[in-house]
Amino acid sequence: MSGPFRHRLRVRYNECDPQGVVFNANYLTYFDITITELWRAALGGYQAMVESGADVVVAEARVRYLGPLRFDDEFEVVAKVTRLGGTSMTTEMVVERAGDPVAEGELRHVFINASGGEKSPIPEGVRAGLERFAAPAG
Amino acid sequence: MSGPFRHRLRVRYNECDPQGVVFNANYLTYFDITITELWRAALGGYQAMVESGADVVVAEARVRYLGPLRFDDEFEVVAKVTRLGGTSMTTEMVVERAGDPVAEGELRHVFINASGGEKSPIPEGVRAGLERFAAPAG
Amino acid sequence: MSGPFRHRLRVRYNECDPQGVVFNANYLTYFDITITELWRAALGGYQAMVESGADVVVAEARVRYLGPLRFDDEFEVVAKVTRLGGTSMTTEMVVERAGDPVAEGELRHVFINASGGEKSPIPEGVRAGLERFAAPAG
Amino acid sequence: MSGPFRHRLRVRYNECDPQGVVFNANYLTYFDITITELWRAALGGYQAMVESGADVVVAEARVRYLGPLRFDDEFEVVAKVTRLGGTSMTTEMVVERAGDPVAEGELRHVFINASGGEKSPIPEGVRAGLERFAAPAG
Repeated sequence: MSGPFRHRLRVRYNECDPQGVVFNANYLTYFDITITELWRAALGGYQAMVESGADVVVAEARVRYLGPLRFDDEFEVVAKVTRLGGTSMTTEMVVERAGDPVAEGELRHVFINASGGEKSPIPEGVRAGLERFAAPAG
Repeated sequence: MSGPFRHRLRVRYNECDPQGVVFNANYLTYFDITITELWRAALGGYQAMVESGADVVVAEARVRYLGPLRFDDEFEVVAKVTRLGGTSMTTEMVVERAGDPVAEGELRHVFINASGGEKSPIPEGVRAGLERFAAPAG
Repeated sequence: MSGPFRHRLRVRYNECDPQGVVFNANYLTYFDITITELWRAALGGYQAMVESGADVVVAEARVRYLGPLRFDDEFEVVAKVTRLGGTSMTTEMVVERAGDPVAEGELRHVFINASGGEKSPIPEGVRAGLERFAAPAG
Repeated sequence: MSGPFRHRLRVRYNECDPQGVVFNANYLTYFDITITELWRAALGGYQAMVESGADVVVAEARVRYLGPLRFDDEFEVVAKVTRLGGTSMTTEMVVERAGDPVAEGELRHVFINASGGEKSPIPEGVRAGLERFAAPAG
């Protein structure tokens, strides 16, 4: 275990709406970008996983908005894999600006066969890579 | 009460990702578009509500993905106001294609003062308009 | 010839930026949505064209911004096919709100083989369908 | 003069479409992100410029697509200010992957008064900062 995974981003102008804050749907995009970087750190990248035969789809997503993010703000998404089931993976996400949480949420991914698309057990190599970022839900 | 509010949309090419399906975050955008149309039907529009002094922010969002939506698919978002609290409103969302649910979720909005931004009771006129689309959670 | 093709849209909240106006890149998305509807009117849809073996890629895009579009504004994109070459097609776009142009631009598409991806002559059936919306550049 | 400004990015999954490549409109977003970083390098940031009383709007944009960018590709946007007029600025953009151009384009910005919104001369401090990245069109 190496503790949670952290990815640093900066708010883009087009991600903000007329209220001057990041539009609510874009937090799910931030979660997705962070998962991409987590695949890279855990497994050498999403593409490597797909080539080994495993793919994922998002089955569930949740966000709680605690405060605004504004244009040009730097922030971190902190990801913890809180559950590795037989065919699914739950990841807890916290969005932090200067150490303060501005949003928190959760993604549940289901593993599928990259060729056929049916639900499929998490391959052992993938599981081992993800366990580095596993932690109890916080 | 007039039953749930329904808004019809069609999937745009840029809303789909390399898996050929609507990218997960875009469902929250579909929810937001539907809420905009619900404001129009209930209250004469979002801008009218802001001009009367009330604004809203999204406090919580949740989506469960049941099946894919693809480019050019037509679908409906079915919105039911399931809770009208003192300062907040919960809306249940079901995304249907040809009558079959492909996603379901929930948004919680908090009403704020359009000038100051502090949490604020739902104005009576807004509440009356929204009650037309109120229904028990399904 | 049936004159230019017109597609009506309404500005979505998430398409606007902190200046309160539609973000500049989103005009290219409006052009793309309009081309999708033009395919439908001219050819029975983009998917039908791909299934018949022809696909397209955007080779060039240009926009001139004449005035702002704001949240909830209704507008039309007026598309004229101004050139049908051997393997490419040029479409002139005008964005109008209440009859006034707020942007104008141009897209150049190149036809490719749907299987291999190489540049490929415009199929006769596609050309015939597009000629309905052909008009001299204005 | 310090030569062109370079900003490094990586393609996000949601920026790609069902053809598996970056959707055409997103290149304008890449240009915009690069201009934001150019403001930071030249002037201490967009916000600083707005606070000093000057704002900008995009008046014209152009992209020529030379080859695809795919998910997870790293690339650079190379920006050269090719014209600093009385009230407007033209920037040439080249998108490079591993040194090869995959797109090139141009943005024209017009300076406006941050309070009133009317066209306004480029402030001397802004002009001096931008001249560091000025170069003849290439």
